[in-house]
Amino acid sequence: MAKLLWGMIGGGEGSQIGPAHRLGAGLDGAFDFVAGALDHRPEAGREYGQRLGLAADRAYGDWREMLEGEQGRDDRIDLVTVATPNATHFEITKAYLEAGFHVLCEKPMTMTVEEGEEIVGLARETGRICAVNYGYTGYALVRHMRAMVARGDLGKVRMVVAEFAHGHHADAADADNPRVRWRYDPAQAGVSAQFADCGIHALHMASFVIGQELDRLSADTVSCIESRVLEDDAQVNLRFDGGAAGRLWTSSIALGRQHGLTLQVFGEKGGLRWAQEQPNQLYWMPLGGRLEVMERGGPGLSPEADRASRVTMGHAEGMPLAFANIYADLAEAIRARKEGRDMDPAADLYPRAEDGLRSMAAVFAVAESGQGQGVWMDARPPMFR
Amino acid sequence: MAKLLWGMIGGGEGSQIGPAHRLGAGLDGAFDFVAGALDHRPEAGREYGQRLGLAADRAYGDWREMLEGEQGRDDRIDLVTVATPNATHFEITKAYLEAGFHVLCEKPMTMTVEEGEEIVGLARETGRICAVNYGYTGYALVRHMRAMVARGDLGKVRMVVAEFAHGHHADAADADNPRVRWRYDPAQAGVSAQFADCGIHALHMASFVIGQELDRLSADTVSCIESRVLEDDAQVNLRFDGGAAGRLWTSSIALGRQHGLTLQVFGEKGGLRWAQEQPNQLYWMPLGGRLEVMERGGPGLSPEADRASRVTMGHAEGMPLAFANIYADLAEAIRARKEGRDMDPAADLYPRAEDGLRSMAAVFAVAESGQGQGVWMDARPPMFR
Amino acid sequence: MAKLLWGMIGGGEGSQIGPAHRLGAGLDGAFDFVAGALDHRPEAGREYGQRLGLAADRAYGDWREMLEGEQGRDDRIDLVTVATPNATHFEITKAYLEAGFHVLCEKPMTMTVEEGEEIVGLARETGRICAVNYGYTGYALVRHMRAMVARGDLGKVRMVVAEFAHGHHADAADADNPRVRWRYDPAQAGVSAQFADCGIHALHMASFVIGQELDRLSADTVSCIESRVLEDDAQVNLRFDGGAAGRLWTSSIALGRQHGLTLQVFGEKGGLRWAQEQPNQLYWMPLGGRLEVMERGGPGLSPEADRASRVTMGHAEGMPLAFANIYADLAEAIRARKEGRDMDPAADLYPRAEDGLRSMAAVFAVAESGQGQGVWMDARPPMFR
Amino acid sequence: MAKLLWGMIGGGEGSQIGPAHRLGAGLDGAFDFVAGALDHRPEAGREYGQRLGLAADRAYGDWREMLEGEQGRDDRIDLVTVATPNATHFEITKAYLEAGFHVLCEKPMTMTVEEGEEIVGLARETGRICAVNYGYTGYALVRHMRAMVARGDLGKVRMVVAEFAHGHHADAADADNPRVRWRYDPAQAGVSAQFADCGIHALHMASFVIGQELDRLSADTVSCIESRVLEDDAQVNLRFDGGAAGRLWTSSIALGRQHGLTLQVFGEKGGLRWAQEQPNQLYWMPLGGRLEVMERGGPGLSPEADRASRVTMGHAEGMPLAFANIYADLAEAIRARKEGRDMDPAADLYPRAEDGLRSMAAVFAVAESGQGQGVWMDARPPMFR
Repeated sequence: MAKLLWGMIGGGEGSQIGPAHRLGAGLDGAFDFVAGALDHRPEAGREYGQRLGLAADRAYGDWREMLEGEQGRDDRIDLVTVATPNATHFEITKAYLEAGFHVLCEKPMTMTVEEGEEIVGLARETGRICAVNYGYTGYALVRHMRAMVARGDLGKVRMVVAEFAHGHHADAADADNPRVRWRYDPAQAGVSAQFADCGIHALHMASFVIGQELDRLSADTVSCIESRVLEDDAQVNLRFDGGAAGRLWTSSIALGRQHGLTLQVFGEKGGLRWAQEQPNQLYWMPLGGRLEVMERGGPGLSPEADRASRVTMGHAEGMPLAFANIYADLAEAIRARKEGRDMDPAADLYPRAEDGLRSMAAVFAVAESGQGQGVWMDARPPMFR
Repeated sequence: MAKLLWGMIGGGEGSQIGPAHRLGAGLDGAFDFVAGALDHRPEAGREYGQRLGLAADRAYGDWREMLEGEQGRDDRIDLVTVATPNATHFEITKAYLEAGFHVLCEKPMTMTVEEGEEIVGLARETGRICAVNYGYTGYALVRHMRAMVARGDLGKVRMVVAEFAHGHHADAADADNPRVRWRYDPAQAGVSAQFADCGIHALHMASFVIGQELDRLSADTVSCIESRVLEDDAQVNLRFDGGAAGRLWTSSIALGRQHGLTLQVFGEKGGLRWAQEQPNQLYWMPLGGRLEVMERGGPGLSPEADRASRVTMGHAEGMPLAFANIYADLAEAIRARKEGRDMDPAADLYPRAEDGLRSMAAVFAVAESGQGQGVWMDARPPMFR
Repeated sequence: MAKLLWGMIGGGEGSQIGPAHRLGAGLDGAFDFVAGALDHRPEAGREYGQRLGLAADRAYGDWREMLEGEQGRDDRIDLVTVATPNATHFEITKAYLEAGFHVLCEKPMTMTVEEGEEIVGLARETGRICAVNYGYTGYALVRHMRAMVARGDLGKVRMVVAEFAHGHHADAADADNPRVRWRYDPAQAGVSAQFADCGIHALHMASFVIGQELDRLSADTVSCIESRVLEDDAQVNLRFDGGAAGRLWTSSIALGRQHGLTLQVFGEKGGLRWAQEQPNQLYWMPLGGRLEVMERGGPGLSPEADRASRVTMGHAEGMPLAFANIYADLAEAIRARKEGRDMDPAADLYPRAEDGLRSMAAVFAVAESGQGQGVWMDARPPMFR
Repeated sequence: MAKLLWGMIGGGEGSQIGPAHRLGAGLDGAFDFVAGALDHRPEAGREYGQRLGLAADRAYGDWREMLEGEQGRDDRIDLVTVATPNATHFEITKAYLEAGFHVLCEKPMTMTVEEGEEIVGLARETGRICAVNYGYTGYALVRHMRAMVARGDLGKVRMVVAEFAHGHHADAADADNPRVRWRYDPAQAGVSAQFADCGIHALHMASFVIGQELDRLSADTVSCIESRVLEDDAQVNLRFDGGAAGRLWTSSIALGRQHGLTLQVFGEKGGLRWAQEQPNQLYWMPLGGRLEVMERGGPGLSPEADRASRVTMGHAEGMPLAFANIYADLAEAIRARKEGRDMDPAADLYPRAEDGLRSMAAVFAVAESGQGQGVWMDARPPMFR
């Protein structure tokens, strides 16, 4: 099976997200990394790209040069990943979609709801794939939770409780460090800091698992460190369109939590609990039964979970393999299009432009509610109301 | 050292709370159980009391009979525990305080804020001890958390996150069972169900540990089972008088949680995490350091924690010993009064009528905020404003 | 129900085991602590006893004085606990049995196999209860494991894996501290240190749970700190009379383990795992099924587990309540004798003189095998061969 | 940097180990998979190879054909992985070494000690790399344990306790299934089953971490299922050449354990604990201190751990990334040779032919000791005595 050709914008030397994407895209051998504009400094980007094995003529200086270069090639890339600073996502994603490329955009997809609606419209119009990298939904057991809810194991979902808490910005002495400071500065980060950075991962995962979209929310946002304008801690109450309620807590001052992305789902017939730091176990409590521990790779899981597992039970799989599942979905989606066939439904799980748009609407609703004493806001993008 | 004499009202045969109090009071040998009115059916109460070893003339038929009987004795009880149905706590506690007895009242101390203020006033006026059984604050490591905050290990507390979630009322088929139903019926339970039953434990523990009183709150209350009028799930946002913010989640439909009373405290200089189900370990993350596991009974803890430990490190202590610590505090308080001396400050940690009153104010604030779209409420009792 | 009268020898001020016994005996209110010879220094013992509430004439100076005093009383004690230094257990236990008292002896019951056989013979001859305090078998879930094996849930037991590892004697600089040193000195401790101190708890628990007695063993004993003659770490391979094999590891230099008493049992139809540090959960893996978490106090457990539970599910019970279960068994045994009836079979679980004897035979077998390159030894006491 | 060229023998369709190697080799983009003889059925192997993207002329029918084909090419493979049935490892590895290829051989490297010595001699003679896939030593925190021991954090190592226990062969009804049965049949599996399959991973890891080689051992081997000739459970006592003692338990009937590869190391100055199922945390207990939790990717780890980490702290890395670290070491080793330079010492950690040989000597010693009542055996290969 011929490999698909893949390019990346951003993710230059020293970035954290660049290696994660290269790992994820390369892991199954479905994509060949053939083009890149990796750095905002053209020379550094070209040099680094070549060091990573790109041909000299495809190690571009910037995204516009790359767009021009790739557009003209017969062997143009099949997918481009946009991993640049947040404020540039919209412009780049838009340009590549218009030029007919499939795009995987890092979150947040845009900085405003209006931009988000434009991207959704463009993706629909051009028929191109526009995915957004909510990579944690690639975990096998997250997909299994979704499958359990979908097939009715929990009955009606009543309540979903999501967290994404860490303590990496808890140091007041470090708060004015430019590496940290920009995140809490409205001029650079927009209307929300911690919710926009981490909370939307938890929100998207909740929505993904329960198969319902967010309808309304009420937020309490707090800046625990005084010099910050934007919040470093937020509690959001949620109502979904299928009737579920939810609670979401996100924090960057939670010392002792490393990467506390967790999800609990409570339904009429059972409850589920999962934590990103121990992603290979899922706790399932059937009503009237006993707590059970489900193992990734174990027998009796769903096709969605099986497809997303690579190694045998008891061998931990981690985040790079979750990212790889997003890329595997995209490879399947692209191939299905090339071959004019329907895609494998167990792979049709990658997050879409619509999800990126919904997140942006939630971000603005959180910010407004947070400034408004927790007033309940409609959290839907206008185009979906 | 002569034993103190102890009596109990309520806690009849088959109750859960009765044995827990007898365990707690008897465990250190400080109290002798000598009087009781254990059942609302006089004969059953007298019979059960005698079976438990009470003398025939002190196995009373009801609390009034007991009050009269004990008042007249030279060897009258030193402490009475009120463990009757919630709606009777006020009347009984009031009567015994007025008669000059020390009282330990089960929570909730009263059904209204006004009653709570009356009890507080009475306790102050009579100089009698009026304690409220927030028994979970008796755990050695909960007391150590309080000591760490008090001595400045965490610096200024920024955020406290408390939970008390279980799934024991998740069965819709069981919701009309009278044993469960009354809890969600305003006619019997008052203005709040799950918050009043469990949430106030978590709230009191948060306040106890951080040494700050609740100032304001905003609540989102949900009834996940349709036939219920009162909430079975609540999220409450908190502001304390010392500047800390807080989040509190409580639920009775959280299948998979058994008794999920947990507390996380995040300060400028470190974070703490503790869970009631594994009460012998405390997780401490110093800013810039590594997560440490503190063991109950281990070296280097506070005097408050040491006093509250009975067996050596590595041997789990559980809930009965936490209750026993409340009784140990009360024994010390009563003895200090008898001996005309100051009490050991490491024992001066039992919850007071003031705490019971504050809880009641919080319950009403939660109910009103929950019905009012989460509007922020003053959560202080009028007498403390 | 009249209280039983209880006395203790040893367990003086500052000892760890004394408070644990007083807690255990007093916890359910079945025993009144009325007599004691608590210290090897007569005056200190008398004084401490009175401080603990003993009448002056029953706060004895030594065990002989106590024996004489109690023998002559109408209200003589129903049970005496022997919690003196190990080398004195035999003499004291023997004297009290001969005088017709029921005895609970701390482990080890004796220092030699011959003494153990003498005690067993004496207990049988006099018809008195002679119990040995393997107190960890009092945990509700340990008793549930035994019940599960007995009723066939595991099928034939194939393998049992027991550990008792801690790190409290790991400090070489502290090894010559007299408080530690005597334990590794044959002149004071006998033929074995760590196995005799901790290993026999794990061995007895294994035997208790699988309902089989030890037949043969092979041991590897190591002194990790050079100045020690006796072992601080031992691995023992086991064969039981019902066909099960076993592995037992015990260590006092295992830094990071606090009180690592754990048991795993593997049978034809399922496996069990339990750890003393988290005693309220039991992990059960049915063949072909999924790992389940059983909660102490939860529904569907055995009568043995239910009888040994005092507080509701989710409220941790710890070691003092396990000890209390041994005392509760003894109270029931003594009462059944007084009342001339059979005892409740769910209480007939306290460890016997026979268990103390078997432990002693195992200790000598371990020592001999350890010095003999791991040669397999018959581990049965001669009288049971 | 030009990619290295990689080939694989074995690992055909449906195998578990094939995908794990392809993941591991491909993950960093250092190796291109260009040649393979993947199946013992030539046509199936050719077809599968092409499906995986091999050129038709490098999708070989068997290993001899591949040897001949690759030998003649200018662009011959830089490394070949041997992932065929155990009995063929020796012959294939030998042939490729003789032809001048670098080899990564699956464990066990050979079926006899003599063959092992021949491979070691050949590797030394030819100067080719002959690595053996003890892939679990690729975990970042396993490497960090080694670094901590090496730099003296633990002081002298006293005791190492290793386990590799699972329950996947516990079903007696399944024991005659050919897929399981061969493992316990001496005609197919050699002298040992569970120790040779899993135990040697734990043994190698222990030796790797403490930096000492095995000297002597004593084993107790048990066949818990009667129809089995070879052991499904073994306990091995160990003595290392640097003075450490050890205990190793391995089992395939341990129901409830999924992949229980764990290591505990106890030294004069501290203790370490790690478990493969939660590989991103390491527990460190410094003498006189408190238990600390070290996080993979966290600050202050060793260069060896840092080099072996790909994603940020809190994002789990799993087994495929551990395998990838072995391949990363090999890539560095091969490149250093090509470039005539010393290799990065933090990468010089891949297991060698000498390790494969030592494992084989241990396997034979375990088998002989197990049949000989646990007699202590010299466990060193003759050439290292």
